[in-house]
Amino acid sequence: MLSNRFQNGMETARLVWSRLPRSEEGDLDGVGLLSTTSNRNCVESLDYEVIENYAYREEQAQRGKLFVGYNVGMKWFFALLIGIGTGFAAVFINISVENFAGWKFSLTFKIIQKSYLAGCLIYILINLALVFSSVYIITQFAPAAAGSGIPEIKGYLNGIDIPGILLLRTLIGKIFGSIGSVGGGLALGKEGPLVHTGACIASLLGQGGSTKYHISSRWLQGFKSDRDRRDLVTCGCAAGVAAAFRAPVGGVLFALEEVTSWWRSQLMWRVFFTSAIVAVVVRAAMGWCKSGNCGHFGSGGFIIWDISGGQEDYSFEELLPMAVIGVIGGLLGALFNQLTIYVTRWRRNYLHKKGNRVKIYEACLISVITSVISFGLPLLRKCSPCPDSDPASEIECPRAPGMYGNYVNVRYAHIVNYCLFLSQDDAIRNLFSAKTIHDSAPKAFWVGGTQHIRRETSSILLLSLAKQYVMFYTLAVITFGTAVPAGQFVPGIMIGSTYGRLVGIFTVNHYKKLNIEEGTYALLGAASFLGGSMRMTVSLCVIMVEITNNLKLLPLIMLVLLISKAVGDAFNEGLYEEQARLRGIPLLESRPKYEMRKMTAKEACRNQKVLSLPRVVKVADVVSILQSNKHNGFPVIDHTRNGETLVIGLMLRSHLLVLLQSKIDFQHSPLPCDPRGGSQGIRHNFSEFAKPVSSKGISINDIHLSSDDLEMYIDLAPFLNPSPYVVPEDMSLTKVISFLQCCF
Amino acid sequence: MLSNRFQNGMETARLVWSRLPRSEEGDLDGVGLLSTTSNRNCVESLDYEVIENYAYREEQAQRGKLFVGYNVGMKWFFALLIGIGTGFAAVFINISVENFAGWKFSLTFKIIQKSYLAGCLIYILINLALVFSSVYIITQFAPAAAGSGIPEIKGYLNGIDIPGILLLRTLIGKIFGSIGSVGGGLALGKEGPLVHTGACIASLLGQGGSTKYHISSRWLQGFKSDRDRRDLVTCGCAAGVAAAFRAPVGGVLFALEEVTSWWRSQLMWRVFFTSAIVAVVVRAAMGWCKSGNCGHFGSGGFIIWDISGGQEDYSFEELLPMAVIGVIGGLLGALFNQLTIYVTRWRRNYLHKKGNRVKIYEACLISVITSVISFGLPLLRKCSPCPDSDPASEIECPRAPGMYGNYVNVRYAHIVNYCLFLSQDDAIRNLFSAKTIHDSAPKAFWVGGTQHIRRETSSILLLSLAKQYVMFYTLAVITFGTAVPAGQFVPGIMIGSTYGRLVGIFTVNHYKKLNIEEGTYALLGAASFLGGSMRMTVSLCVIMVEITNNLKLLPLIMLVLLISKAVGDAFNEGLYEEQARLRGIPLLESRPKYEMRKMTAKEACRNQKVLSLPRVVKVADVVSILQSNKHNGFPVIDHTRNGETLVIGLMLRSHLLVLLQSKIDFQHSPLPCDPRGGSQGIRHNFSEFAKPVSSKGISINDIHLSSDDLEMYIDLAPFLNPSPYVVPEDMSLTKVISFLQCCF
Repeated sequence: MLSNRFQNGMETARLVWSRLPRSEEGDLDGVGLLSTTSNRNCVESLDYEVIENYAYREEQAQRGKLFVGYNVGMKWFFALLIGIGTGFAAVFINISVENFAGWKFSLTFKIIQKSYLAGCLIYILINLALVFSSVYIITQFAPAAAGSGIPEIKGYLNGIDIPGILLLRTLIGKIFGSIGSVGGGLALGKEGPLVHTGACIASLLGQGGSTKYHISSRWLQGFKSDRDRRDLVTCGCAAGVAAAFRAPVGGVLFALEEVTSWWRSQLMWRVFFTSAIVAVVVRAAMGWCKSGNCGHFGSGGFIIWDISGGQEDYSFEELLPMAVIGVIGGLLGALFNQLTIYVTRWRRNYLHKKGNRVKIYEACLISVITSVISFGLPLLRKCSPCPDSDPASEIECPRAPGMYGNYVNVRYAHIVNYCLFLSQDDAIRNLFSAKTIHDSAPKAFWVGGTQHIRRETSSILLLSLAKQYVMFYTLAVITFGTAVPAGQFVPGIMIGSTYGRLVGIFTVNHYKKLNIEEGTYALLGAASFLGGSMRMTVSLCVIMVEITNNLKLLPLIMLVLLISKAVGDAFNEGLYEEQARLRGIPLLESRPKYEMRKMTAKEACRNQKVLSLPRVVKVADVVSILQSNKHNGFPVIDHTRNGETLVIGLMLRSHLLVLLQSKIDFQHSPLPCDPRGGSQGIRHNFSEFAKPVSSKGISINDIHLSSDDLEMYIDLAPFLNPSPYVVPEDMSLTKVISFLQCCF
Repeated sequence: MLSNRFQNGMETARLVWSRLPRSEEGDLDGVGLLSTTSNRNCVESLDYEVIENYAYREEQAQRGKLFVGYNVGMKWFFALLIGIGTGFAAVFINISVENFAGWKFSLTFKIIQKSYLAGCLIYILINLALVFSSVYIITQFAPAAAGSGIPEIKGYLNGIDIPGILLLRTLIGKIFGSIGSVGGGLALGKEGPLVHTGACIASLLGQGGSTKYHISSRWLQGFKSDRDRRDLVTCGCAAGVAAAFRAPVGGVLFALEEVTSWWRSQLMWRVFFTSAIVAVVVRAAMGWCKSGNCGHFGSGGFIIWDISGGQEDYSFEELLPMAVIGVIGGLLGALFNQLTIYVTRWRRNYLHKKGNRVKIYEACLISVITSVISFGLPLLRKCSPCPDSDPASEIECPRAPGMYGNYVNVRYAHIVNYCLFLSQDDAIRNLFSAKTIHDSAPKAFWVGGTQHIRRETSSILLLSLAKQYVMFYTLAVITFGTAVPAGQFVPGIMIGSTYGRLVGIFTVNHYKKLNIEEGTYALLGAASFLGGSMRMTVSLCVIMVEITNNLKLLPLIMLVLLISKAVGDAFNEGLYEEQARLRGIPLLESRPKYEMRKMTAKEACRNQKVLSLPRVVKVADVVSILQSNKHNGFPVIDHTRNGETLVIGLMLRSHLLVLLQSKIDFQHSPLPCDPRGGSQGIRHNFSEFAKPVSSKGISINDIHLSSDDLEMYIDLAPFLNPSPYVVPEDMSLTKVISFLQCCF
């Protein structure tokens, strides 16, 4: 490919590839200058690529076809394990939550028959105990397990490692914490935490267990590079979504759209497999539970709010109210994001500074408030156990009659969840319920009742829905950010379906058509609120379709999502992006800001200092450089025959530490060795550099070097990470960002 | 970001970014050395990035925020137009095919009542006429419209421009050609061509109409860079799938998984919007057609083989036969790919060399064969018009009774399409039909009939299904590669569902369970054959779910696809990859070959010649270089103060041609000008370089230069394309490929 006269230029070019100082790290810092992010000291960037130094290439050259096959086989085996593990974790969480909640409801109801106040107290106390257990676990044992975990996972898959988020203790905290917080009736869901759980399981499997607790096995440690581990975490993340919503395709798309920034088609294939395994595991577990093996109340509890019997068709005049739902969703979603930012910032700056004790008090207080409200609202109407299956009665129980948590139903149960201590899943099922015309009392009045009754019913109904909406929204905002594992999906669906149903009622009233289903509007409302808050498109759309099991509404969901995302984007960023920013996780923006058009790479990083190393460096210098700063990568420069300085690659701190620790590549003279000259040059195996935990755990102060060692030299050339990327300093930031987006 | 001692190295690095000679082009050639691709002379690679030279940056700096907004608005407006255009094209094709086929069936049936032979002849002649019209259009008017077009579009979106594939005449040929070929009853579908149609519409809109036919408007020409046009074509491609299958999410995923190699989240959002628009347009058109506005027979004809009433649940012992279906699908799919390679190669080397006349004869011959077979098979049984809706009869008509193409039904119509001149859609609907137990004769025999009858029925049934399968398969193979627009989706579904149904029958027989639906097995068979042949995963899965409107089978479809793709991959590549290779379209492989592990970039391109230019070049030299070769990109080298040669960027042939044509940047001295010194250096606007058609249409021989001009010089520096990529010559090919995959 080279003509002769060109050879020389190529030779020079070869020496000058570089990545200054680490593309993702450096440039994110640069971008950070423009934004208001801060306290990012704790994050660490991952190696996005395999370090292809001479040692690595030697190891690769020795590998046979068999080893490659073994490696591929292992990857698929791990995908299988992740699927099974996440599936079982999801089943465990679901069954526990269902059983706790069911037991709680049944006990409360027994007592309520005798004394209302005692029942209320018991209810509040049980909830308090559950929430306390959750917040105690989080604050004392696994602080990284608080919140939904999705911003952190998103950060991880975009190349930022936040210490602690993928540890075994985080996994345990997440699982038991979310059982407590969801079972305790707080306005939060178990879906976000399940995504984090899946990611933790994947990461732990990838590093062959937890090294800290000595539960690791050597033969499992096949995945040494950050890239392999990132792939596993992607699988885990998709598995989490697949398990949480029973939406396997939604899981794949969620991982693709929302989480990873770099996607390879081979990986898609593996993620798809993991999701399919999860679907099979969850289905098997549900079949097993149906025969009563999972306790009285554990009938599965997996989200499927089947509305496949719903509205088949839509008329074009309905597109207007649907667009209105989209706009409302965008506005309310953006407002939700803004409010949670304020609340989180306030919590961070004032409340949580005072220590764990305050966090515990706070969660307990919110639990009491939530319990009181959910008990207070039903006072308006009397709740009664659902009558045994009586096809003549107009009341449909939210679940099959029997021994489930099915005690609570009133005349309007299908529309308003007066009895808020109905579990969340059942409440949503009611809101989505499609057959209002046929079986629910208010609609019957509407169609055939007298004018007087109709008006009264309607106003009571609207008022109740509005009350319910305000309550959900407020609770969701104040609960967000407490120190418990918390997902925003289910609260979002609750909020959205309430106002969706309201718009649906108005639409029915206005168009006076009987084939309009309010349940459809509730579903669209839920989609719009989630779209307006989380700003996902394809994945959210598929998840909504998969959980409602109704494909016919797909175009409508798409349009509503488009509108709500567009409206929301006019105000602020998505929930996860905002939260990631608040937590100091730098994420590469999806679109360069307008100001960046005229900025160059040089301007973006004017104040940043880069420390470089010469090709052959004195050990004492290395030690002092490593001690003086916290950089993780150092460009290495060399001189050409003409004395010109050239960047020849990047040296990682972790690799320097391994070199210093092992001392075998030290040399006496400051002359460069020839790495291609054979084994004399490189006495290291690549695998020594690639142990992710051990090499990253050591600090420069742990390494003891004799004064003789300090006088020696190291030739860094064989250990450098060459890279095909050079960002010229006058390249525009727009291009730098689009380049980073496509590669990282 | 730079410490002082490092400044100098950075300065040098800045000068040395390069792309040698064009990353995608050069390396694809390199990879090509290892494979057996040939005759690649006709393809041209696209510019994957915006050329960020000084002229471009000056133009960018002048642009206000308003212009950016206008640009974004235009992109969305074009997405809307593409959605509407593709939707209407799909509706037009569907209605035409339905009307032609319906009219054909009704005429044949009228005549068949009097004379069987005359009916047969009329049928053959009508088919012949339709196929002749199609092949005539293709051979005489739009040769690029032959075949499915998906390999070409895939190539385009991977950076390879094949002349002619996105022209107006191709669009017209595709639309009318596929009406003829599908209406003429050949064993092919209209789905692939619809994808190509969508892409053509997008491309034509993007360049503001067809310049050749002077149907272009200036204000539409907002999209000058290849990247913008590629984004539009991606939207068009997704719109085509969305329209063909009424699968909006499937369309997005198809574009994502199968077609584009580089994907930006902003684009996903726009593609999603386009698909939603298509869904709304198609639905509106179908609503309009339902009221009888689209002719007697045009009831829509869009694929939705609704099996939502099918099997709800599956038992674990059923997973074995389903896995068997997956394996069969993989084997048969790989065999299909291999056979089509042989057939296509034979056609290419022997048959089609003899000119268009042979192509026409060939297509007509295949049409006659297909017609005779579809008429011959039903001779075994008598076909009769479907009786008017009689709920007591055990025969269910494939369509609502009335005036549609519903004349053909026999006792076993639900399972075997004896009456093959049933249209394809109806045949598949029958194969997928779920309610076999309740309404179809053979199953009734099975359940309640005597031993004797059962055995007879069963053997007839099996034999017929097997016959049908062999026939479909043979016809699909010989039809593939004729000079008509041809999709492989529908034939694949026909083949797959036939053997799927066979396996289903065996399973029912073996497990003796009544809740097993053969329709489910037919669907899984279809999925497995498509998976084994096309090797798609997520997108195919979503498309299958969307067209059958049954979400509950999702995990099963996923597992079957996984197995069939894995089995197929053991034998050969996917259908589109193989066809792309046969057509000489270089595609970047998804996984580097094993041999490449030890190869370096230098070894891969050892025999390729690169022609470079100095920074300041004499016009006469440029002309002679441009005349002497067909390269589209030239690296430009410069000398440092020390006399060392450095690559400073890449110059495109098209830009050189614009420079030569306009002559305004010529200078008398061979000294470099300072591009940052102001307007004196660059007198060109970037927009002059960016007119895609005009600048690419001119050849060096069209430019007339005086002898004075030839003695002048040009400084190329302001027009260079800098690039952040340098591929060091000793980088391993594995890394080069993974790098190319993520960026291009």
